[in-house]
Amino acid sequence: MMVQNILHESDVWLSQKGPSQHVVVSSRIRLARNLIRIPFSTHAKSDELSHVTRLVGDTIQNCKSIQGFNLISLHDIPTTVRKYLKESHIISPELEKGDEHRLIYTSPNCRISIMVNEEDHIRIQGLAPGLYLKPLMEELDRIDTELIEVLPIAFSEQLGFLTACPTNLGTGLRVSVMLHLPGLVFCRLIEETMKMVQPHCLTVRGFYGEDSDYTGDLFQISNEASLGKSEEDIVDSVLIVVEKIIEKEEEARQKLFSERDLAVEDAIWRSYGLLSHARVMDTQEAMGLLSRIRLGIDRGYFKDLDHLRFNKLMIEIQPAHMEYKASFKEGTERRDTARADLLRSIFQAPGSNN
Amino acid sequence: MMVQNILHESDVWLSQKGPSQHVVVSSRIRLARNLIRIPFSTHAKSDELSHVTRLVGDTIQNCKSIQGFNLISLHDIPTTVRKYLKESHIISPELEKGDEHRLIYTSPNCRISIMVNEEDHIRIQGLAPGLYLKPLMEELDRIDTELIEVLPIAFSEQLGFLTACPTNLGTGLRVSVMLHLPGLVFCRLIEETMKMVQPHCLTVRGFYGEDSDYTGDLFQISNEASLGKSEEDIVDSVLIVVEKIIEKEEEARQKLFSERDLAVEDAIWRSYGLLSHARVMDTQEAMGLLSRIRLGIDRGYFKDLDHLRFNKLMIEIQPAHMEYKASFKEGTERRDTARADLLRSIFQAPGSNN
Repeated sequence: MMVQNILHESDVWLSQKGPSQHVVVSSRIRLARNLIRIPFSTHAKSDELSHVTRLVGDTIQNCKSIQGFNLISLHDIPTTVRKYLKESHIISPELEKGDEHRLIYTSPNCRISIMVNEEDHIRIQGLAPGLYLKPLMEELDRIDTELIEVLPIAFSEQLGFLTACPTNLGTGLRVSVMLHLPGLVFCRLIEETMKMVQPHCLTVRGFYGEDSDYTGDLFQISNEASLGKSEEDIVDSVLIVVEKIIEKEEEARQKLFSERDLAVEDAIWRSYGLLSHARVMDTQEAMGLLSRIRLGIDRGYFKDLDHLRFNKLMIEIQPAHMEYKASFKEGTERRDTARADLLRSIFQAPGSNN
Repeated sequence: MMVQNILHESDVWLSQKGPSQHVVVSSRIRLARNLIRIPFSTHAKSDELSHVTRLVGDTIQNCKSIQGFNLISLHDIPTTVRKYLKESHIISPELEKGDEHRLIYTSPNCRISIMVNEEDHIRIQGLAPGLYLKPLMEELDRIDTELIEVLPIAFSEQLGFLTACPTNLGTGLRVSVMLHLPGLVFCRLIEETMKMVQPHCLTVRGFYGEDSDYTGDLFQISNEASLGKSEEDIVDSVLIVVEKIIEKEEEARQKLFSERDLAVEDAIWRSYGLLSHARVMDTQEAMGLLSRIRLGIDRGYFKDLDHLRFNKLMIEIQPAHMEYKASFKEGTERRDTARADLLRSIFQAPGSNN
């Protein structure tokens, strides 16, 4: 399959309805696995890395649950395409580097991907729209079980699955939920709410993952450690906290709409005015404005737009997506112009065609 | 004539084309005169002030050039109406106070007004759109000559006309030109250009006159002293400097449109987006946004809008205008909502009716 087709399908998974989609953009689960008697990928030599790709490749061919997956060698594709895949959350920053012997297998709708020679030899990742952790976990378990049956996976009775980074030790499980929390941000209740997360051994990150700033009122909640708990317990602990946050966000929106409706209405329509008229727009600003439009959908404005379109749009406006689709060379201004053009075409203000 | 009618006509003078209107919003000239043997208005007793109003009133009835003028006693009208007249530049901040025995006579189109018991006993003021100093000066001179012929005006052979404030001594003349300089502001050349003004004994003020901040890229250039020069020389010295500034502004716009067209286009359309969508807007913000739209007219956007509409609009959106027209009580939020409503109705974005 051509790389273009994979890119084209990279956000298909995000186009479907998901539970609690008014607050939850997406759910992500990944499992880290390593092969025995081979150094972790970050310390392995070229022939060892190549050995991993061969072993995994042979296995995948025979796995029922991994049939029809597409293969990309990250070393062989342009930087922009790797950035594109990272922005789509399909590969990690580690794989974005595009070193040799780094592979990715993706399901036809890009919901499931298997990364080879990331920090760990194998990372199985599942993405789903909305709050969809339990069924996603079951799906990944099926793939994991098949791989474990055939591959010599590093496992200790005492520690569980062995991983390159100690934080992944045990289950090798990372459960993340991307939340859209404009209500809590607008009401200045976000810090207070996020403090709620800490005692549960969960962490909060921004849209772009580790060390990223909060942008577009998007917050990623994930488990901190994967040791000493079962997979089920980890999923449950994330679910419980996320459901509490959803409740808080709903309360905040209710409060906003009843007590500060004019200010919110003004903020939403101003965002619409800018999105439908600007000629140059950077990612950060676009994310902030789109966040308000997403809140506006919830408020009942913009009847011809829905949450799903916005989830996709928040990915589509990312830098590499703009560069790739517009076939532009790198360069902030042209990228920012292409972004403004795309947004204007979507928000279709007649004035903008003058 | 009803006060309402005067208010209704208060900006008629601004609706006509004027020379250099792409840069010059309006010209204003005023002459300060005082009657002999009566203390200046700020120090006069009630009966002395009343004596002034009677003397001036009797004279005006018989002056050819002041026929058909409307009379308002500022003490007898509501605060909002006085504020409205001040915003229209028809009365001064001093008359806005609405003390007893303060009168204003206005020509039917509000171009000419005669203030009685301002800081000086008599102030004759003329307003005109665009750069229109010489004909306006001639017009005021005719009125002034008629008044001087009949009234006992305080005049010293050595000092010229005597005035309450020494800065008005001599000719009693203040010549002001309101300039719209978005090009120089955008190119950060405004300070440099304004330094040019100082050696010519001119001052620069903001839209609201003395001590006011610059708003909407509007700058008022006026003569500093009125002593030791003839009226003609004062008008000429203002004209020379204003013409130089117009040239600089034209150069700046040319440069902007050729070298930074995308940034300017973006700024103009963003302003349009906000004006056509915001639900709440304060005066300061509206002035800034309208300034960019006025620049956009010059750039060839907005073919159904013109400079004149904008000159009027910059007055119409002022606080007391909003209060009066919307018959609202004072209150920033309702005023700011009414302003946003007015602006949306003018910029008519279909999205704003959703």
